[in-house]
Amino acid sequence: MIVRSRSPVNAEPPASALAEDDITATNAFYCRNHGPIPDIAAKRWRLRVDGAVARPLELTYHELTTRFPAHDVVATLACAGNRRAELLKVRPIPGKDPWAQGAISTAAWRGARLADILRAAGVTPADGLHVAFDAPDVAQEACPVQTYGSSIPLGKALSGDVLLAWQMNGEPLPRLHGGPVRVVVPGFIGARSVKWVIGITVQPCESRNYFQAVDYRLLPADPDPGEAGIALSSLALSCGILVPDDGATVPAGPLSVRGYAIADDSRRVARVEVSVDGGASWRPAALRPGRSRWAWRPWTCTVAAQPGPLRVVARAWDDTGATHPESPAALWNPGGYANNSWPRVDVTVR
Amino acid sequence: MIVRSRSPVNAEPPASALAEDDITATNAFYCRNHGPIPDIAAKRWRLRVDGAVARPLELTYHELTTRFPAHDVVATLACAGNRRAELLKVRPIPGKDPWAQGAISTAAWRGARLADILRAAGVTPADGLHVAFDAPDVAQEACPVQTYGSSIPLGKALSGDVLLAWQMNGEPLPRLHGGPVRVVVPGFIGARSVKWVIGITVQPCESRNYFQAVDYRLLPADPDPGEAGIALSSLALSCGILVPDDGATVPAGPLSVRGYAIADDSRRVARVEVSVDGGASWRPAALRPGRSRWAWRPWTCTVAAQPGPLRVVARAWDDTGATHPESPAALWNPGGYANNSWPRVDVTVR
Repeated sequence: MIVRSRSPVNAEPPASALAEDDITATNAFYCRNHGPIPDIAAKRWRLRVDGAVARPLELTYHELTTRFPAHDVVATLACAGNRRAELLKVRPIPGKDPWAQGAISTAAWRGARLADILRAAGVTPADGLHVAFDAPDVAQEACPVQTYGSSIPLGKALSGDVLLAWQMNGEPLPRLHGGPVRVVVPGFIGARSVKWVIGITVQPCESRNYFQAVDYRLLPADPDPGEAGIALSSLALSCGILVPDDGATVPAGPLSVRGYAIADDSRRVARVEVSVDGGASWRPAALRPGRSRWAWRPWTCTVAAQPGPLRVVARAWDDTGATHPESPAALWNPGGYANNSWPRVDVTVR
Repeated sequence: MIVRSRSPVNAEPPASALAEDDITATNAFYCRNHGPIPDIAAKRWRLRVDGAVARPLELTYHELTTRFPAHDVVATLACAGNRRAELLKVRPIPGKDPWAQGAISTAAWRGARLADILRAAGVTPADGLHVAFDAPDVAQEACPVQTYGSSIPLGKALSGDVLLAWQMNGEPLPRLHGGPVRVVVPGFIGARSVKWVIGITVQPCESRNYFQAVDYRLLPADPDPGEAGIALSSLALSCGILVPDDGATVPAGPLSVRGYAIADDSRRVARVEVSVDGGASWRPAALRPGRSRWAWRPWTCTVAAQPGPLRVVARAWDDTGATHPESPAALWNPGGYANNSWPRVDVTVR
């Protein structure tokens, strides 16, 4: 793992580790934390469910894992700051980790559907409601210092594949990844998949937690004072190149390029293309099905590598025919978020 | 109106006509046709509803307009080929009309909800079903020559704001715009809002009509033989500059820029920005609410115009923080569709 910070622990795998399997090994799954890792024994864990519900609940780990049907979802999670390093080359972003392209990983999650828990609590679906998650990890970076929290719209929470997960890749959810129980919100930025979740509140507004109300928002490049920005939610259409490594030396001849693509949470990936002439011409990549509707779609494309420097570029299209921006310069923002520009890898061909 | 072809009639308003009101005057609404305009008296119009329904229907105009609740929707329609002219500068597209930026307009539509009609016919919602529309206008450009048709997914058809419309801006739907009855599919490319609709079929596949199966598909720039492309459906996030006119001469000093923005059919417009330095810096535009969830959001922005040539550029962001591509070169495709690159207007400041 490439460690971005030790306290809190933040680390990403090299791109090649992500290329090894459609499902990321747990020990290669990226780690994004805002505070010390809580140490909560499953026996002592409790989940409070309250707010705009008819029957507030308090659930033990045993109740969560036995009272509700277990549901399996393969889902890709990605940090909103994935590929921030490319934005840093446009303009500095002080105090933010320079994630390369490894702050994205895919796992098989098992848990209870959040929808089942909210229904057990007697929630009444209504427009404008949000589901806030509270965790016990204390973020020194927050202002004021506070525990981590976040929220998602109730409609998303009821959509069926949002989990309170207690397993990751067939094993009990590791403490590092939010064990004993975390939220998994497929299709949304990783920041909404709150780890070590201990509280769920149905409420008429977004979470007022720092990480919903202040951080993880897309500000204009030069914001006016008081500008609130856009709360990040769905991941945007994007793709990545995992093989070859950026900076690698490769033999001349056919070069196999491999990567992944994801669509936003209401779309599917329909096409990936690769260019070795700066976007003047494109070759279609062979797309494999994702392991689920919420998992990245792996792709491969063989291009001709002539001796000399070679830049490989990729782009994706979704099932409505939409594509994503070309350049990180057009996406620079003060938080360094949501860089879904065309991925680029530079190699030397010998 | 700027006439793009006389037979069939295809015409668009100048941008300044679109800036006059949030709702486009009926005589300024763009006209996109594939054949001669049918002449169907309301008294002789019939609608057949069949396919995967429990109770096939045949409805008269009187039945359509009295048996079902009238529903009002303000919706922006846009041709998939809007702004094709910019793509033509990248690479020629033979046989396609060079739409400038006027093949988009907004009207107040009144009609019956398609969902109500499908329910009256006893449709059973199921994944993978489509709703095909048949019209009587004969398209000589189709291969083989055939009447116009198209389809949308059943889920979209049941979503509530898809209309069989008989009024436009408070008047009976003009023949030129599909009267006596047309489909209005808010959020989708105009080609799915089938005019003079006479048949609706619920079926397990997309329409096999030329305009669904062959045309209005997004092909790669250099397609392999047999490449099917992506059937266009939802409009993509986009914006346009309506004032000043491209090529205009304007006085030095504060320059008021006006335009519109639309999001894709699952998102909302959250931000519009204007640049007069080629994208190096951006000013926030003042966004007005759309007249409905399906109408464009008008915006204004005042910039400083110094004497000399001035290029004004705009871009939009949706409520998930996604934005759209910068350059038409990256969007060129053989059909000349879906150009949602940053709009650009060149003026001379004196």
